[in-house]
Amino acid sequence: MFEKNISILGSTGSIGTQTLEIVENNPDKYNVVALTTNSNIDTLINQAKKFHPNLLVVNDSSLKDELWNKLKEENLNNIKIASGQEGMIQAGEMAEAELVVVSVVGFSGVIPTISALKADKDVALANKETLVAAGEQVMRLSHQSKGRLLPIDSEHSAIFQALMGEKNDSVNKLILTASGGPFFGKTKEELYNISPKDALKHPNWDMGNKISIDSATLMNKGLEVIEAHWLFNIPFEQIDVVIHPQSIVHSLVEFVDGAMKAELGLPDMRIPIQFALGYPQREANNFERLDLTDFDLTFKKPDTKTFPCLSLAYQAGKIGGSMPCVLNAANEQAVYQFLAKKITFLQIPELIEKVMEKHEVIKNPSIENLISVDNWARKATDENIT
Amino acid sequence: MFEKNISILGSTGSIGTQTLEIVENNPDKYNVVALTTNSNIDTLINQAKKFHPNLLVVNDSSLKDELWNKLKEENLNNIKIASGQEGMIQAGEMAEAELVVVSVVGFSGVIPTISALKADKDVALANKETLVAAGEQVMRLSHQSKGRLLPIDSEHSAIFQALMGEKNDSVNKLILTASGGPFFGKTKEELYNISPKDALKHPNWDMGNKISIDSATLMNKGLEVIEAHWLFNIPFEQIDVVIHPQSIVHSLVEFVDGAMKAELGLPDMRIPIQFALGYPQREANNFERLDLTDFDLTFKKPDTKTFPCLSLAYQAGKIGGSMPCVLNAANEQAVYQFLAKKITFLQIPELIEKVMEKHEVIKNPSIENLISVDNWARKATDENIT
Repeated sequence: MFEKNISILGSTGSIGTQTLEIVENNPDKYNVVALTTNSNIDTLINQAKKFHPNLLVVNDSSLKDELWNKLKEENLNNIKIASGQEGMIQAGEMAEAELVVVSVVGFSGVIPTISALKADKDVALANKETLVAAGEQVMRLSHQSKGRLLPIDSEHSAIFQALMGEKNDSVNKLILTASGGPFFGKTKEELYNISPKDALKHPNWDMGNKISIDSATLMNKGLEVIEAHWLFNIPFEQIDVVIHPQSIVHSLVEFVDGAMKAELGLPDMRIPIQFALGYPQREANNFERLDLTDFDLTFKKPDTKTFPCLSLAYQAGKIGGSMPCVLNAANEQAVYQFLAKKITFLQIPELIEKVMEKHEVIKNPSIENLISVDNWARKATDENIT
Repeated sequence: MFEKNISILGSTGSIGTQTLEIVENNPDKYNVVALTTNSNIDTLINQAKKFHPNLLVVNDSSLKDELWNKLKEENLNNIKIASGQEGMIQAGEMAEAELVVVSVVGFSGVIPTISALKADKDVALANKETLVAAGEQVMRLSHQSKGRLLPIDSEHSAIFQALMGEKNDSVNKLILTASGGPFFGKTKEELYNISPKDALKHPNWDMGNKISIDSATLMNKGLEVIEAHWLFNIPFEQIDVVIHPQSIVHSLVEFVDGAMKAELGLPDMRIPIQFALGYPQREANNFERLDLTDFDLTFKKPDTKTFPCLSLAYQAGKIGGSMPCVLNAANEQAVYQFLAKKITFLQIPELIEKVMEKHEVIKNPSIENLISVDNWARKATDENIT
């Protein structure tokens, strides 16, 4: 029986736990060899009890001893542990892993993704910041690697699926759909007093905090535009965004002959996760199916005046070099400060724009350059809070 | 420069003329070697003047001399002519042809399609009755042939495109979209006094008379269900129909993992025609593009009480053997009598059902069986007009 060994970076988050659900549903197909968390060691240990990995990693090194003690209490001393970035890299490149799911949040996905590709692993990428900040470097490595880069994001999975069996030069345009987030249709005036709680209410998808805020600002779609640019090697001028409040059509491709292809279905992240895990095989499941009868699908233009983050992302993408890394870092920091109630919802794009304006672009940044640009941009964001 | 030699059976009809438009737009890619018409010899001669085929065929043999004389008048004596079924077969199997477009209407498409496949030609099939009446025979031949069978019908082209790069065992369901025709939402009572003129008004597609009436009765979708069954080797239980009044989503495939793929675009038959002509290459064109922004796509259940033709088609398909041939012949004849104002719109399904009830099914019919069943069903239809 075929069995794929999987390492899950960020197994205690939303994508991580859904990935484990797929593994649990298919015990003869997938085997977990490593699980990692940023700091949620209790959940990590519960997962370890169920899935018996070879390695557990806690990114926050200060929790390493606590993890070790708790594992002993549970008689799980046979599991190796590691911590920090070194531990994350180890989980990405370990010999036992065939597929590495990168579902950590933020810039921290870059280094382990690179390690996994260098070790010729297939990488199922749910971390969009990796391609936003280091798209050129990661794609170059991916072409050199024997491993495949498979998108988990529903939009990129949709485009990936729509492109199956198609030639690269047949593509005219990628069209990313966006739910519009919880504030679609609102004016800037109505967004002055938005609280983190309001912004975390996503209409269709069940997601983590960072991505929920990104979805409310439309930055999530902006990051996806940059990600799609790298993943599918398509110029920004040929990537469109359309608001589709029902989140049923997950994205589309327009071909040179005028035909379009879309992947669609219920907004259930387990579908793209399972697709990436099983690729090129589609595995059967009993997830609820989309019943198209008595259904309305609507499509609208995005309102980039009220939600300037989308335009900022296109700008950063077209400028290129280190600018998307700045966009991403400033956004991460601004969202963090918004969730901490240090800034308002409308200050998020204002801060990002300010930091982008201050940045002197590095044309062909190294990973080291990107790490220091990332640090600079976070600090610059905080410094510009008025 | 690559150039494909094309024979067009039924070049003076709606699909035929649109096929020639594609040829005209791509003079370096396609070359016409044969054109055929049922009886429209004036249009045929105009097409010959423009596209210089080697062979012209008029299906109605009584018009052969007239065609000959008119060609002489135009100094086109160098073009060979032929007539009747023999002529149609000749156009399908001639040595010069690489791709045969079968865009004749009705049962008459069966024999030339078989000839073309036997002669190892690629066949671009716009004639749905061929697969409805003789699906088993045609598919068997198609698997033995070096030629490919490529669908032109927008629904089947959509499914064909959605299946590119996918494995056969990944398919869970085919979902054919139907515009619903001009009478969608009406009750049986409202359809008593429908005239041929009313029924010929199709909301989205510009089509011939037979197919327009079939669209109004939903028989068109019923025939497509049977066609899809053969073309994609999917049981009838896994083929659904959904009403989609905008005709933007041309059909969908649901996979075993819950993902769905759709092909969509403006309702422009030139797109699937061009796709079939150029396959596997997608050629660029300047056709109007679908702009998804500010668009609503709606999906409804079909009303098989008011439009029983769809259920009759499923019945005939599931019974199999010679029954779909009877369904098709009775429908062709009933539509003919409706257009001649000999029966009402609501009598079309009634007549078909009566003829199906009288038919004794032949389980593995030969083509000869099908020809006589076809004849019998037409006569039986006329005899049952009260």
